[in-house]
Amino acid sequence: MNSFGHNFRVTVFGESHGPVVGVVMDGVPAGIELCEEDFAEDIARRAPGAEGTTARKEADTPKILSGVFNGHTTGAPLTIVFENENTRPEDYAQFAAIPRPGHVDFVAAVKFDGSNDPRGGGHFAGRLTLPIVAAGVVAKKLLDGIDFSSQLVALGGSEDPDKWSELIAQAAKEGDSLGGVVECKVTNLPIGVGEPFWDSVESMLSHAVFAIPGVRGIEFGDGFKAAAMKGSEHNDPFGPEGPVKNGAGGVNGGLTNGAPLVLRVAFKPTSSIARAQRTWNYETEAEETLEIRGRHDVCFARRCPVIVEAMAAIVLEDLLAL
Amino acid sequence: MNSFGHNFRVTVFGESHGPVVGVVMDGVPAGIELCEEDFAEDIARRAPGAEGTTARKEADTPKILSGVFNGHTTGAPLTIVFENENTRPEDYAQFAAIPRPGHVDFVAAVKFDGSNDPRGGGHFAGRLTLPIVAAGVVAKKLLDGIDFSSQLVALGGSEDPDKWSELIAQAAKEGDSLGGVVECKVTNLPIGVGEPFWDSVESMLSHAVFAIPGVRGIEFGDGFKAAAMKGSEHNDPFGPEGPVKNGAGGVNGGLTNGAPLVLRVAFKPTSSIARAQRTWNYETEAEETLEIRGRHDVCFARRCPVIVEAMAAIVLEDLLAL
Amino acid sequence: MNSFGHNFRVTVFGESHGPVVGVVMDGVPAGIELCEEDFAEDIARRAPGAEGTTARKEADTPKILSGVFNGHTTGAPLTIVFENENTRPEDYAQFAAIPRPGHVDFVAAVKFDGSNDPRGGGHFAGRLTLPIVAAGVVAKKLLDGIDFSSQLVALGGSEDPDKWSELIAQAAKEGDSLGGVVECKVTNLPIGVGEPFWDSVESMLSHAVFAIPGVRGIEFGDGFKAAAMKGSEHNDPFGPEGPVKNGAGGVNGGLTNGAPLVLRVAFKPTSSIARAQRTWNYETEAEETLEIRGRHDVCFARRCPVIVEAMAAIVLEDLLAL
Amino acid sequence: MNSFGHNFRVTVFGESHGPVVGVVMDGVPAGIELCEEDFAEDIARRAPGAEGTTARKEADTPKILSGVFNGHTTGAPLTIVFENENTRPEDYAQFAAIPRPGHVDFVAAVKFDGSNDPRGGGHFAGRLTLPIVAAGVVAKKLLDGIDFSSQLVALGGSEDPDKWSELIAQAAKEGDSLGGVVECKVTNLPIGVGEPFWDSVESMLSHAVFAIPGVRGIEFGDGFKAAAMKGSEHNDPFGPEGPVKNGAGGVNGGLTNGAPLVLRVAFKPTSSIARAQRTWNYETEAEETLEIRGRHDVCFARRCPVIVEAMAAIVLEDLLAL
Repeated sequence: MNSFGHNFRVTVFGESHGPVVGVVMDGVPAGIELCEEDFAEDIARRAPGAEGTTARKEADTPKILSGVFNGHTTGAPLTIVFENENTRPEDYAQFAAIPRPGHVDFVAAVKFDGSNDPRGGGHFAGRLTLPIVAAGVVAKKLLDGIDFSSQLVALGGSEDPDKWSELIAQAAKEGDSLGGVVECKVTNLPIGVGEPFWDSVESMLSHAVFAIPGVRGIEFGDGFKAAAMKGSEHNDPFGPEGPVKNGAGGVNGGLTNGAPLVLRVAFKPTSSIARAQRTWNYETEAEETLEIRGRHDVCFARRCPVIVEAMAAIVLEDLLAL
Repeated sequence: MNSFGHNFRVTVFGESHGPVVGVVMDGVPAGIELCEEDFAEDIARRAPGAEGTTARKEADTPKILSGVFNGHTTGAPLTIVFENENTRPEDYAQFAAIPRPGHVDFVAAVKFDGSNDPRGGGHFAGRLTLPIVAAGVVAKKLLDGIDFSSQLVALGGSEDPDKWSELIAQAAKEGDSLGGVVECKVTNLPIGVGEPFWDSVESMLSHAVFAIPGVRGIEFGDGFKAAAMKGSEHNDPFGPEGPVKNGAGGVNGGLTNGAPLVLRVAFKPTSSIARAQRTWNYETEAEETLEIRGRHDVCFARRCPVIVEAMAAIVLEDLLAL
Repeated sequence: MNSFGHNFRVTVFGESHGPVVGVVMDGVPAGIELCEEDFAEDIARRAPGAEGTTARKEADTPKILSGVFNGHTTGAPLTIVFENENTRPEDYAQFAAIPRPGHVDFVAAVKFDGSNDPRGGGHFAGRLTLPIVAAGVVAKKLLDGIDFSSQLVALGGSEDPDKWSELIAQAAKEGDSLGGVVECKVTNLPIGVGEPFWDSVESMLSHAVFAIPGVRGIEFGDGFKAAAMKGSEHNDPFGPEGPVKNGAGGVNGGLTNGAPLVLRVAFKPTSSIARAQRTWNYETEAEETLEIRGRHDVCFARRCPVIVEAMAAIVLEDLLAL
Repeated sequence: MNSFGHNFRVTVFGESHGPVVGVVMDGVPAGIELCEEDFAEDIARRAPGAEGTTARKEADTPKILSGVFNGHTTGAPLTIVFENENTRPEDYAQFAAIPRPGHVDFVAAVKFDGSNDPRGGGHFAGRLTLPIVAAGVVAKKLLDGIDFSSQLVALGGSEDPDKWSELIAQAAKEGDSLGGVVECKVTNLPIGVGEPFWDSVESMLSHAVFAIPGVRGIEFGDGFKAAAMKGSEHNDPFGPEGPVKNGAGGVNGGLTNGAPLVLRVAFKPTSSIARAQRTWNYETEAEETLEIRGRHDVCFARRCPVIVEAMAAIVLEDLLAL
């Protein structure tokens, strides 16, 4: 369903090429200063512009429809929409019958019996992460004193940022795309965030993170490496200030332990590539070769640190408002 | 909170050394044949016995408290409990002040202000996965025609099962422990399982899987490897039967695509080890050396394939009963 | 919170004198024909115009922001907003310190620490029932074959419609207001709608109905009269077609029984009256006499049958989509 | 579904003639003293014994299965069961085909396709209110400083307790039954309890109250009488301490206003009566005359004040723990 959270509840709506994408936030306390400028910095972090990102530019101006009066939140639901201005729906006409590999075209058409909005992925589009970023801004405001830092730590398989320009240039030249890994770190969290049995802090974070299009995996602390370690290596000994190292990524038994919360998220390479791909035409029942034109990121993962961070903030505000 | 799911809702309760651990399942249709023997096979898969697993043996006999009449489910909540027989609470007395590295002792004491049940981890214990296995049995019954297979694919960093005995023997000798990776594969799922925006099939599965104690990461299909691939490598071309390879692990845009659903889960090494570990005594404010006695798995991941599978079944039944 | 329902979930937002009031509906199946004209009839039933209703006129034109493509629902969230055009916020300036009897002014200011939007009741305004009527239109479309009929059955204490004009004229002349009783009847429901233990059909209906501003009571079938009857009078004997009379209002044990579902809802008299009322000035700490100007219904209950009906449809669609 | 509440969540299970009825409470804070004796007083208030109540006697001894350690709650789910000892299932054998007027027999058989447990109403039985009373005891403990008082205010249509014995004796002699009205009053509540838009305090209370078997109506303050009053009569003027009278029953705009919360609940007469009733035999397709033997309350409403009170406490704890 399109709502997430119990106490800070985020409802997302809209389509990539419809009139708006938007969000309703429920559980925002009254009396918080909020204006449209507050969103500018994080929206800019998500916007294209860096090497390897799309040429589709939107004004991305938030419009507050409810929940703010005289520059303060009112305690009523906070609704923010973003108008979709720069739509080019004709780019997508062909994919109803001939699904793009890696895209939701095919399964969405089956699930919704052909009635889904196919333009730009419709409700499945990456553009839906724009209202998520807006919700993240609000959540971070509410999580006063808690610090977030998020960055790309790998691109195209390389952990060395010096090489990323070159990898992107090469992939662009080949009409191909690249994936990446985002790391998000949250510090100054209280001890004990998370709710047994089902709502461990990792459960809630991974639930939200896998709602971001293109995520293939998530891990905490030593992550998959922990599976190859011995207990004596992976365990974090306790000292006077809590754990003395952070193999657990800040979580014991599903609850934060006072150390920084550290998660890493694997993003797949952009699905839309110019390079020829094999697909199937479900109308003519024949193999087709597809070369996807349009304005696409070579590596959309570059735009994702702020999105992962927004998701983390949404989840933590939901758990802390409990 | 201790409930999960909208349409097949699973509520878990109990403590490792209290009278019972148990589960209430809501949303079970009426008229399904069910008896206590139905649980035997999966309970045996979770039981210790294999090399590297604990010597604590429980009868693990399910007792149906509600929801079954004349050998059939009634449509009312289905409650199953397991009595805790083989408890040795004295093993755990020392950890209130001197937390075991890798365990929830410390954070649970902070969160619940010292009132949590510390015996064997209390409500955080791995024993809570026993009612989960029972719920999984019921979910799999309801998911008639859908097939699950789950196995350990790595132990102690090795993907070669021939080496596992040796690794376990070595770790046991050193008083140490090992982690592992479980792979779960689900076939014959309909296309389109998952609910945008928030309840993608990966979101729901990861939410449930991270409720299992000791999970450090989860990935689908190519998983973390996808972040190092090009679009032309990772994308799954379509053919007449759907995707012709399975880099996506059976999921596009958060919805199942007809290919097998494939997830891998990283389990950390068992936290309780006999080998000396450094910890802190929060009463005397002094460093301590801890050697954990008691009956512990060298590699509890060996017992986890059936648990991951149960979680997958619980989630899929919840999504399919929608 | 501002969402209701599990399978047909309705999220309401907006303030009486903000830019819009609106609704997000989740769980609307794909492929349903829907256009803005579909809402006209029910919106007209709620609009003022009848004797005893307010002179505030709004265009009340629904604007579909998401979830419809090419004239059909897409399966994605359906968002509808109504712009607020005819706002006169100056009418409400005085009530921050001097609460109007019967209104939420005082308690909202306490709850939200003075940050709530006080203009026209803000998020508590009766205007929020406009998006509810829109959601009811969608729900009734989905409940194909099920019939709703709703009407005012008492006004100002009289069950005789011939007398209502006179009662209204008299109350208007006295600067006073009147209450009323709405009856809603739903026919052709399947047997067994409602979910034990908590979500009896009466539980769900009353939950939704008490969200309408001004409701003081709800009853089903014989209602409060049943408490004064004998079992032999109140019980509905069974015949070949089900119950042969309908003292139970179509519900046994919280489940629909095939007979028409009948509920009655008591609405209080409009709180805003021109007649002098005593109140308290919480700033000067002195008694005040208040005469409320502005455009108010003498009997807002006249506009409520379609609102009660919308609530019934929302609830029944939620239960039937299960 | 069988769970209610967000922050104090109550899950109910069991059948009248199965092994147990029980409850899981989630969201109980750690560190609250709790023992089985704490339940005795309220269980006694629900027990038969007064004139007009059933001769079925149960030990009604609560058994705490989880969530308590060393006499204090642990913060983990609190599970309490009551064993069913005094079952006489043979009393109910005949009603599968020949439904009792006023009972759920017929609709439950349709809904659950004949697989429901018919013995004593199964999961629909009044006996399920026993774990509700237990949950109410816990909720009232958590609502320290808030006072509840509940009583029968009408029986068989009379508000004069002096006449009730006579009315009961007469009905018993005729093999008939009587209804009643319960009033519950809650004092010392903070201002502002309730959550707009959907979770007004009346919405939540009525949701819970209509889960009690046999409820036909609920009203707050002036209730149905308010529909026949003028605004100048019904409105509660404000004075220095808040409202100076209580026509609103302690609620404005869905939020508590500081005055006592007052609700009244109409209970129907007991459905099971010895007097001959007409029903239908759905097997033989013939009219039948039914005389119900067994041990039934003449007026089960007498046992209900503590149940209504428990529901009120459950709801208020859920809203206040928010």
